[in-house]
Amino acid sequence: QGGSAPTPPSPEGPPPSTPAPAAEPPPPTTITAEPGRGIVVKAGERFSFGLRARIQLRDTFLHFDQSDTHEIQVRTLRLIVGGNVLAPELRYNIQLAFGGNDFETGSSSPIFDAFVEYTRWRDVNIRVGQFFVPLDRARTIREFALQFVDRQQVVRELNLDRDVGVMLSSNNLFGLNEWLGYQFFIGGGDGRNRFAAYAPGPLTVLRLTLRPFGAFDDDQEADLTRSAKPRLSLGVAAAYNYRTSRRNSTIGTAFTAGTANYSHLAADVVFKYRGFSLLAEGLWRKANTDVLEQTTGTTPTRDVTRSGYGYFVQGGQLVSPQVELTARWEQLFARRGTDPQFLQLVETQGKQVGAGFNVYLNGHAFKLQGDYFYIFGATGEPRHLARLQLDASF
Amino acid sequence: QGGSAPTPPSPEGPPPSTPAPAAEPPPPTTITAEPGRGIVVKAGERFSFGLRARIQLRDTFLHFDQSDTHEIQVRTLRLIVGGNVLAPELRYNIQLAFGGNDFETGSSSPIFDAFVEYTRWRDVNIRVGQFFVPLDRARTIREFALQFVDRQQVVRELNLDRDVGVMLSSNNLFGLNEWLGYQFFIGGGDGRNRFAAYAPGPLTVLRLTLRPFGAFDDDQEADLTRSAKPRLSLGVAAAYNYRTSRRNSTIGTAFTAGTANYSHLAADVVFKYRGFSLLAEGLWRKANTDVLEQTTGTTPTRDVTRSGYGYFVQGGQLVSPQVELTARWEQLFARRGTDPQFLQLVETQGKQVGAGFNVYLNGHAFKLQGDYFYIFGATGEPRHLARLQLDASF
Amino acid sequence: QGGSAPTPPSPEGPPPSTPAPAAEPPPPTTITAEPGRGIVVKAGERFSFGLRARIQLRDTFLHFDQSDTHEIQVRTLRLIVGGNVLAPELRYNIQLAFGGNDFETGSSSPIFDAFVEYTRWRDVNIRVGQFFVPLDRARTIREFALQFVDRQQVVRELNLDRDVGVMLSSNNLFGLNEWLGYQFFIGGGDGRNRFAAYAPGPLTVLRLTLRPFGAFDDDQEADLTRSAKPRLSLGVAAAYNYRTSRRNSTIGTAFTAGTANYSHLAADVVFKYRGFSLLAEGLWRKANTDVLEQTTGTTPTRDVTRSGYGYFVQGGQLVSPQVELTARWEQLFARRGTDPQFLQLVETQGKQVGAGFNVYLNGHAFKLQGDYFYIFGATGEPRHLARLQLDASF
Repeated sequence: QGGSAPTPPSPEGPPPSTPAPAAEPPPPTTITAEPGRGIVVKAGERFSFGLRARIQLRDTFLHFDQSDTHEIQVRTLRLIVGGNVLAPELRYNIQLAFGGNDFETGSSSPIFDAFVEYTRWRDVNIRVGQFFVPLDRARTIREFALQFVDRQQVVRELNLDRDVGVMLSSNNLFGLNEWLGYQFFIGGGDGRNRFAAYAPGPLTVLRLTLRPFGAFDDDQEADLTRSAKPRLSLGVAAAYNYRTSRRNSTIGTAFTAGTANYSHLAADVVFKYRGFSLLAEGLWRKANTDVLEQTTGTTPTRDVTRSGYGYFVQGGQLVSPQVELTARWEQLFARRGTDPQFLQLVETQGKQVGAGFNVYLNGHAFKLQGDYFYIFGATGEPRHLARLQLDASF
Repeated sequence: QGGSAPTPPSPEGPPPSTPAPAAEPPPPTTITAEPGRGIVVKAGERFSFGLRARIQLRDTFLHFDQSDTHEIQVRTLRLIVGGNVLAPELRYNIQLAFGGNDFETGSSSPIFDAFVEYTRWRDVNIRVGQFFVPLDRARTIREFALQFVDRQQVVRELNLDRDVGVMLSSNNLFGLNEWLGYQFFIGGGDGRNRFAAYAPGPLTVLRLTLRPFGAFDDDQEADLTRSAKPRLSLGVAAAYNYRTSRRNSTIGTAFTAGTANYSHLAADVVFKYRGFSLLAEGLWRKANTDVLEQTTGTTPTRDVTRSGYGYFVQGGQLVSPQVELTARWEQLFARRGTDPQFLQLVETQGKQVGAGFNVYLNGHAFKLQGDYFYIFGATGEPRHLARLQLDASF
Repeated sequence: QGGSAPTPPSPEGPPPSTPAPAAEPPPPTTITAEPGRGIVVKAGERFSFGLRARIQLRDTFLHFDQSDTHEIQVRTLRLIVGGNVLAPELRYNIQLAFGGNDFETGSSSPIFDAFVEYTRWRDVNIRVGQFFVPLDRARTIREFALQFVDRQQVVRELNLDRDVGVMLSSNNLFGLNEWLGYQFFIGGGDGRNRFAAYAPGPLTVLRLTLRPFGAFDDDQEADLTRSAKPRLSLGVAAAYNYRTSRRNSTIGTAFTAGTANYSHLAADVVFKYRGFSLLAEGLWRKANTDVLEQTTGTTPTRDVTRSGYGYFVQGGQLVSPQVELTARWEQLFARRGTDPQFLQLVETQGKQVGAGFNVYLNGHAFKLQGDYFYIFGATGEPRHLARLQLDASF
């Protein structure tokens, strides 16, 4: 008990030096557990602590020209901790991602989400920390709630991923029956787990959402509720990332020759009805310059930026309470003069058409997924991609 | 609640869009805890969630020729999550390893185990994910259940470690009083947490086990039960790793000059009686070629493979319910023409003889271990290795 | 159930082969939860298992000469597991740190603390594992219990951080009303998560503490109890790190040209009274040589060591139960002939004066912090540093 290390989190520890809520008896502690939602311990209104885990096992086959490759992987493994502290409206959320592919180059930090939010005021929820940048619908759908094995190429190229900052938002602005929502984000703009100081230059995002039939689970793909009530969500968003140091705005290779400014636009629609779901989205990104050049001493360094746009449409139909068939079309475009690698990607793989199936054994919390994509462009051999996946939350 | 991040795992979250088991009242949630087995939360038959931790503290002295080295380390630290989901027979298991030495070169992923298994059918249990490759008994004994400070050199050199794939198995094939067991594994063959696509080439393993006196804890060293009933387990296994990219088949340095095919054989025996335990095993590995050569442009690259074999015998005797004395002999051989480093290892350290002790304060879940090894070969100075270890599960 | 992987921590698992405490009925399991202290599961006297989490979100502005830089980060994220096992006095503690800056160069291990301690004997508590080296008060104050956004520069330069070893200690030596305490540490001396064997050379530390008015929370900054009883803690410590391989003794760049011996001295005082708190400390470090030189073949390598000293004084006053104002002065000195980078640091940033505030919403477990520092030296432009931070435990 030398005091030289953190106290074990135990009642026998030294008395907390915090202003003790000693007078009132502590509220009874309850515990609940549910498949796919982990465990939740609750101590009255003031505190809850939830813990759950998720794994994704994926098998990937790719045929390209003469080559066949195959990968079987633990694609990701997540630990999620969350609940409320001090008040019901003061919520916290931590998500750690431990998959081999989940780490940023040069960082060993598994932190995906780490934020605190205060949701007391209907029109201004406040969130601080690291989380999804609220640009487009497709990227901010939670990964466990996808109806394909993975996200769209358009979205993987043009999204704003995660960043550290502050978000003001509402799902029910002005109390109009949950018709109107907004998200305003301002953050560092250089993405997650970055520790290099940089010249100031924030990322600013504004997103507006209209849900003419009221709020629904538009942050999850598929219509698992199969409700006979039609549901629609329309979103538009704009973002400006001033002086970012990364090629894809908040992700990708770090620049060595300076910073660039990126403008972003997004528009998206979600529709669900009786087990049918439609998700469509357009994304646009433009850098203020195609090339960054800098000369340090006599050594010139040079970076290219990535400007482009794209869209996708995908739909799903539940053919039974647990089985869904899906289809997707997407197309990616690069602006002339942009990163040659990006131009090359579009030229050879810019178009993708595919179909898939899902077996929802416990909704999105335990599902078997399969899909196939035909990937092609204006030139080169097409690619055939087939994937099988188990996504399970505990 | 903008939907742009995972919901905190809390009852206050948005209603799950999964087909709700709404009609039936949720089963009562219970929690249990036990030293060395962590906590387990159970919600009826449909769900359980367990969590435990383990640390290993090790002090190592090595005397070699003129040199004395010394290391004291947190050798490993594990977090283990597991239970069942949706049905009692649908089980999941996650093991994360956070020790400084637990990571693969170039990967920050701490994932050791991540699998789901379905154990409904006596003759065909199905397991999918990342886990121990079921080749030999010594390697598939859980690390916390060893009766020496560390595994045998023969096993560390020739084992198949972990891989991602599918395993069919049974502990009681045909219901013959648990006499017969088998494990059939097919997987990627390149080991854990690998994310480079490669030309297809699976690892296939078949292992047969005979336990003439019925099932027992042959996956744990030492005879802590001290039962007066003799127990015997005989195992044989064969494996073929087609087109692997790693020097030790599923582990070790990655090849740069192509892939090799490895054949593996294993035979092992476990015997326990009244506190006495014997474990013996032979292992054999052979590559289809000793040298890989490739010329990319004008740059030739060259890799060597590792072919060899070895065996060990070890025994332990409990001299009191908590104290055990142990001894081990092992010998490693390399095939002519194989990796010169491997030949050198065998030449100087191929033989090891040692003894040790264990104090089991809570069985394998909390024990103090010590051992000493005399390591020698046909040439060179011998090595003296002494180790002291605390292995504790919580 | 092929036995080839760790058993899920579940009652349905195979029967433990440990000497079963079968006869006695298991003690009832209870669970408690408290904001900032996580959850604790207790199974009688023999076992408890606690789990909590902590995040730190920080915004940093730095003005230096013509340059303004800005960083917003998830500075750290911790998971803490701890409790007792087998006996109330046998305690364990694990702390994992997942922030981008929490990792040692070249290591992916997030282990900060991992130790077991036995606290049965008043005069000799025994702790084994990895934890804070008990040199000075300021460094061994737990990070969540600081009254500024970050530690003092003097302490960050001259402290002994964490190491792996054994500590004997007492908070109440000879039972003199908790007046006397000591900590004696012996460990590897090369810091946390090091896996390179090295020539033996331990770190030895002895620290004595006098608390003339009895024990109090001198391991936490600020006087949140606001007690009308004055409290005082006086500490002195000395350490000798024989043959270390790191520039700052237990931290910093690894030497390539041999090892050095470091001597350390520390003296510190903590005083608290009616919401006022004072913390002052002096630290001194000296290497046995300023330069290490070695010639391997014909390649000479050369390393420099870091010798210096410094002190700081800081105080805080609670102006309401939840709001504190703080101030700090500190000064760092380097010895002539030491590492030129260290001399340069002292020359340009050796002096720091600053002030700050804290809003304690749940004591140290949920607080908003801000501070400003004016950083200067004998030469060069001064720096202006402003920081804002949320530190929250769950």
